[in-house]
Amino acid sequence: MKYCSECGQPVEQRVPEGDNLPRFVCTACRTIHYQNPKIVAGCIPEWEDRVLLCRRAIEPRRGLWTLPAGFMENGETTEQAAARETWEEAQARVAIDSLYAVVSIPHISQVYMLFRGPLTAPDYQAGTESLEVKLFREDEIPWDEIAFPVIDQVLRKYFDDVRTGTQQSALHVADMVRPMGRR
Amino acid sequence: MKYCSECGQPVEQRVPEGDNLPRFVCTACRTIHYQNPKIVAGCIPEWEDRVLLCRRAIEPRRGLWTLPAGFMENGETTEQAAARETWEEAQARVAIDSLYAVVSIPHISQVYMLFRGPLTAPDYQAGTESLEVKLFREDEIPWDEIAFPVIDQVLRKYFDDVRTGTQQSALHVADMVRPMGRR
Repeated sequence: MKYCSECGQPVEQRVPEGDNLPRFVCTACRTIHYQNPKIVAGCIPEWEDRVLLCRRAIEPRRGLWTLPAGFMENGETTEQAAARETWEEAQARVAIDSLYAVVSIPHISQVYMLFRGPLTAPDYQAGTESLEVKLFREDEIPWDEIAFPVIDQVLRKYFDDVRTGTQQSALHVADMVRPMGRR
Repeated sequence: MKYCSECGQPVEQRVPEGDNLPRFVCTACRTIHYQNPKIVAGCIPEWEDRVLLCRRAIEPRRGLWTLPAGFMENGETTEQAAARETWEEAQARVAIDSLYAVVSIPHISQVYMLFRGPLTAPDYQAGTESLEVKLFREDEIPWDEIAFPVIDQVLRKYFDDVRTGTQQSALHVADMVRPMGRR
């Protein structure tokens, strides 16, 4: 951020009075511009013993597989965001069920919120952000081609829970730290 | 938003190519400025059969009681945000425990994430944003002076769960709609 979105004049970074963190503050109108983490909402689309994955048509990680998920929009609920993203990326309808994973990723200021989402029918196809959409049994998951570490971790946990029959009541609250040696 | 935070020129509202919602787009550098919901992280600070509430020293709802909670900051986890807010508003240390409530409030684009947070000691005092901080048993809660409907709802649910002994394993995922007739 370089300019004030309210008046168009330059901003500076400083700690406002009564605050303890540096913020972008307008040098003209004094508006304080806060920046906060974003929610990535999505689901684990379930059909019998399989889950639906999308192969990304867009960067980052084009060509790799992921669960349908994306930035929550203003004016919607977390469940609505999860269902919308599943429709947009996989053209699939889901009955959003229990919240399954809440994963904070502080180094990129994102919080993933992933629900269990049984498909209402085995109908799906690639949306504009996907190259391909496919149902996978656990032993068919392309583990070497998963787009994001958080998705890899949630999928492994999910199939562990399926094996013990606890996936319907489980909630995993976790953090992901920056991989060592990476920026 | 009236001006581009990257180049300082005016923005206009339009639906970018490949998108389906109006965004603020810079008329000069074409940067698209997305706006997303904010997470309000907090906790239910527990001490024996009581919970710690804060009487707000700031607007909105100055003088009314609430749970310690506030906007999550970039670079932190949801649990860190909940513990930080509890320290700032009630000068109390908590051992953040299970996630208790996730409440979407779409008309103000907020998602509350409230954890159970046993106090590590019965030490607390008003932080700069509080007039007063106090432990309440259920029958002592000032129900007519609770600052926000979401907090009222979560506290009622919490004491219901305490009565049935299920507060430690419960997770409530809910939405709050705009009260009828209000803007």
